[in-house]
Amino acid sequence: MSKYWSPVVNDLVPYVPGEQPKLDNLVKLNTNENPYGPSPKALAAMAEVIGDSLRLYPDPESVELKQTIADYYRVTPEQVFVGNGSDEVLAHIFFGLFQHEQPILFPDISYSFYPVYCGLYRVESRAVPLNEQFEIDPSDYAQPNGGVIFPNPNAPTGRYLPLAQVEQIVAANPDRVVVVDEAYVDFGGDTAIALVDRYPNLLVTQTLSKSRSLAGMRVGFAIGDCALIEALQRVKNSFNSYPLDRVAQAGAKAAFEDEAYFREACDGVIAQRDRVSEALEGFGFEVLPSKANFVFARHPERRGEDLMTALRAKGIIVRHFNKPRISDYLRITIGTQEQNDALLAGLQEIL
Amino acid sequence: MSKYWSPVVNDLVPYVPGEQPKLDNLVKLNTNENPYGPSPKALAAMAEVIGDSLRLYPDPESVELKQTIADYYRVTPEQVFVGNGSDEVLAHIFFGLFQHEQPILFPDISYSFYPVYCGLYRVESRAVPLNEQFEIDPSDYAQPNGGVIFPNPNAPTGRYLPLAQVEQIVAANPDRVVVVDEAYVDFGGDTAIALVDRYPNLLVTQTLSKSRSLAGMRVGFAIGDCALIEALQRVKNSFNSYPLDRVAQAGAKAAFEDEAYFREACDGVIAQRDRVSEALEGFGFEVLPSKANFVFARHPERRGEDLMTALRAKGIIVRHFNKPRISDYLRITIGTQEQNDALLAGLQEIL
Repeated sequence: MSKYWSPVVNDLVPYVPGEQPKLDNLVKLNTNENPYGPSPKALAAMAEVIGDSLRLYPDPESVELKQTIADYYRVTPEQVFVGNGSDEVLAHIFFGLFQHEQPILFPDISYSFYPVYCGLYRVESRAVPLNEQFEIDPSDYAQPNGGVIFPNPNAPTGRYLPLAQVEQIVAANPDRVVVVDEAYVDFGGDTAIALVDRYPNLLVTQTLSKSRSLAGMRVGFAIGDCALIEALQRVKNSFNSYPLDRVAQAGAKAAFEDEAYFREACDGVIAQRDRVSEALEGFGFEVLPSKANFVFARHPERRGEDLMTALRAKGIIVRHFNKPRISDYLRITIGTQEQNDALLAGLQEIL
Repeated sequence: MSKYWSPVVNDLVPYVPGEQPKLDNLVKLNTNENPYGPSPKALAAMAEVIGDSLRLYPDPESVELKQTIADYYRVTPEQVFVGNGSDEVLAHIFFGLFQHEQPILFPDISYSFYPVYCGLYRVESRAVPLNEQFEIDPSDYAQPNGGVIFPNPNAPTGRYLPLAQVEQIVAANPDRVVVVDEAYVDFGGDTAIALVDRYPNLLVTQTLSKSRSLAGMRVGFAIGDCALIEALQRVKNSFNSYPLDRVAQAGAKAAFEDEAYFREACDGVIAQRDRVSEALEGFGFEVLPSKANFVFARHPERRGEDLMTALRAKGIIVRHFNKPRISDYLRITIGTQEQNDALLAGLQEIL
């Protein structure tokens, strides 16, 4: 604490991201990055930008990137907002769309940045428990609220809520914004973007950090009704005119244009996910059904923290959350075949 | 307006950045970019990052970049904060250090993003008039306040406040944060970073968009006492863990390591600034003394807006602010010798 701080700073409890270890030769399965690199076309587009033009400001509105995303999802550019990673997009959503009198709702087990944004902008919230199977029950979201947000597939569980049930939540809240955070949707889910033209209160967020392998470049976006996008534009243009640099804009655009590579990488992750899930079950793990690029699993006879520590001693990093209901689970990112082999071999030695 | 918006969004008046025209062959002297490209070493460092590693998140704390900046300015890494352009750094400052009961103070003619941040975070402000010569008078900043911020050199005037007078303002406000926004200081000013070890209330911000020619990459930073930096860290880590992508971090670090190129580019701009100032005076302009990479000038017989429009018709873009006291001025970025030749030739035809 310091007399110089704005009072709100005293109470902030910042988000703690998964570790980015500086050691080489680690099997890094802790932050849900894609085991495949970015599209070669995206790399080429980025390399082409590296030159004299970097002395100039980027396009503050990322017009070409927005057009590309709009074309891809068959919406208009006015329905697209882009930001410096989906975390920034989410921050602007909490600021611009969630500051209402009623508390917002999100699942008790969910992306742990949501309560952090609430602290930053003094947004009241109410955690809605997942059911015993860690599923979202749409009927729980019909209570009065100032907005709703949930990841789909959920994180860190990986569980996917079918689109019909997403629609139930959106339809039950016509006066409030419902945000579906689809960071992981490309690994087997259906996007709710298909519903935005029918629901002016629906906002869908996605990221290029997972399925499009550009975590290192920080690009995220939101798609929804123009009025929702305009709120985000106003906040963005009152915060930072130029959130996306020239290289990121070029890479993101090219990544969307390389559908073949994208499909191949997603299919590869899905195939490995199925294989890892089966193998974990073979070791006695309970594995939640996942539509994400990670699995969430617990062993009935071993503490989650102990397993995480034992794997770490073997140079394999997975994520463990020391939180109620999930402290015995490991969240394991799906890696390359070799990384997954190393994981499974490591577990075999430990168990 | 929309029922979905947070009420604060209704009143936002976003910042309008200088135009980024999409036409080629324009002489673009409107957004204070550096006429020289980035350091070749910075370009090489960025090119090297373009590859498979972009699938991984960047270092959330930009440890290497902070160390490089700390070494350069002879401070510790704990005294350095980095952000996605200095606009983002400023936004976090307004949020984390300026939300107090008293209004903050800034010059009436100054960076027009300051009142926008005030609107975003509901920070009260009081504009302190510059004197008749468009100078900051330090004695005006001894009144009660919730913080002080001013650019030095000032924008859009280009006028520089000597360090002794900056220190006067800092010393007069021991209980409040004084932010010196040094976006343009490398073009002939002395940085107040020399004072941070003696004043726990002093925070200095800079950008790599001007003197280091990386406007396209979005990197800014702040240097001050650890307690001030900690406030910004808390806000940043409650907003977006990964504000700087891998390419930006690498380019910024290398730009600081290429001192020879940096000096040469700054000296080139300064030499051209002196030449353009003299030529403008030869045309009858009143030119404010500038320590920035632009000049601020008016012609006693011609309206600023008319001159801007006439230059634009010739493909030369300069910035004009339709605001009290300065509506007859043009803010002209110093370009390459060829660009400046085009500017002067254009003016000769117009006048």
